[in-house]
Amino acid sequence: MEEKMTISSLQNDRIKRLVALQQKSALRRQSGLAVVEGRRELEHCAAAGHHPVAVYYCPALLAAPCPDYGCPCHEVSREVYDKIAYRGGTEGIIAEVRPHLLTLEDLRLPEQPLIVVLESVEKPGNLGAVLRSADAAPADAVVVCDPLTDLFNPNVVRSSIGAIFTVPTVCCTSAECIQYLKTHDIQILTAQLQDSHPYYATDMRHGTAIVMGTESTGLTQAWRDAADAHIRIPMRGQLDSLNVSVSAAILLFEAVRQRESSLFS
Amino acid sequence: MEEKMTISSLQNDRIKRLVALQQKSALRRQSGLAVVEGRRELEHCAAAGHHPVAVYYCPALLAAPCPDYGCPCHEVSREVYDKIAYRGGTEGIIAEVRPHLLTLEDLRLPEQPLIVVLESVEKPGNLGAVLRSADAAPADAVVVCDPLTDLFNPNVVRSSIGAIFTVPTVCCTSAECIQYLKTHDIQILTAQLQDSHPYYATDMRHGTAIVMGTESTGLTQAWRDAADAHIRIPMRGQLDSLNVSVSAAILLFEAVRQRESSLFS
Repeated sequence: MEEKMTISSLQNDRIKRLVALQQKSALRRQSGLAVVEGRRELEHCAAAGHHPVAVYYCPALLAAPCPDYGCPCHEVSREVYDKIAYRGGTEGIIAEVRPHLLTLEDLRLPEQPLIVVLESVEKPGNLGAVLRSADAAPADAVVVCDPLTDLFNPNVVRSSIGAIFTVPTVCCTSAECIQYLKTHDIQILTAQLQDSHPYYATDMRHGTAIVMGTESTGLTQAWRDAADAHIRIPMRGQLDSLNVSVSAAILLFEAVRQRESSLFS
Repeated sequence: MEEKMTISSLQNDRIKRLVALQQKSALRRQSGLAVVEGRRELEHCAAAGHHPVAVYYCPALLAAPCPDYGCPCHEVSREVYDKIAYRGGTEGIIAEVRPHLLTLEDLRLPEQPLIVVLESVEKPGNLGAVLRSADAAPADAVVVCDPLTDLFNPNVVRSSIGAIFTVPTVCCTSAECIQYLKTHDIQILTAQLQDSHPYYATDMRHGTAIVMGTESTGLTQAWRDAADAHIRIPMRGQLDSLNVSVSAAILLFEAVRQRESSLFS
């Protein structure tokens, strides 16, 4: 049932909590809640089984009627919406969500899975961009090991344009992930410059995990040791640097190319 | 010769002009000047023949002595530097530069060139990210047709991490570019979803221009009509959307893979 009163004060307790959830990762962790903004993002979020617990919408900005997610739905004034919107308030809908956190054991993988593993990714925008490419390829899962950012950071949600909800995404330790991949006979390909082969000279048609390190320090020794092969993207420019999300996309789409075209031999 | 007086006021005429150049594309166009920030960026800039006309540096932030670019070099206070720095003042050097604008006729291309063409790219950050991948692949040139942003927008310089200076980059009209490519027997591959083949089923070992449209509306009909082939990156996700810089990287590195591995047949 909708409450019909319009919230028009930023001092409203609900609004204060929503803003705190956006800004504080500790509060997100502790409460198990996250904030999701945008009509499409919220659709993908609900479709993936993450339950909205409260929806806030601004009738002046929302093109369609507020969807019914089976939770309280609060009308807010334009002024309040503009303050709480992370993106400048173009769509008029924002929700508090209780994400369903996946574990490795929850993953339902096909016979020859394609997985992206990110070790300790630092920038939420990079994680979001990797998820977007993982949705398109598609990858069967993204695993984030020992993360320095939380999965439901508003900037991850935004830069993934919702892919955080369409791609099965797991947080765990590197040790757990390595054990899982070994147990499930999924080859581990670590992206690294030292002791490595060009990525296109590596057969990715079997079950494959593409593993990438942090933007600043690369992969830890545990991953290098666990690898079945070390791969690199040859860089022949003057800057010697590719964005982590661009690298992930090049490797993912090469795996897809090999699988689709059967041109690897 | 260095002037020894430290500039400590934001009202200083030189500082006011520098800030205006950062902020106003019309002023950049009219004056033929741009602003370049960061030690490495400025090195690549000078090495590529774009002449610094005035350097500003903050001794407290610059790790090495201020390089001599044969132009006036002004010391600025920490406070002034923090205000003029686009990136938060980590490196302590920023310069007014007179970029050498390349034309199509200036390009010196190898026998089977690889070129990226962007039609009317909208976001400076996307252009910068494409340039960064073009440096790494490498592409022999990037051509920006009918641009909606100027090449030396501070956000292009920043997001390219200097690749705007290491990759030969030309601005021109679409008509000029099409004529140039046809005259030089460079095949035109347009990235588009309609009437297209998977990109990996297209031979890119000859001289090739990969042509991509705007983020919002795609390519104009002139480019579609001029194309030798239409190519697409198959997307099998739920979001049906790849970032333009990610798409450019996937296509560029496929061309490099074909050329290096000779695996296309």
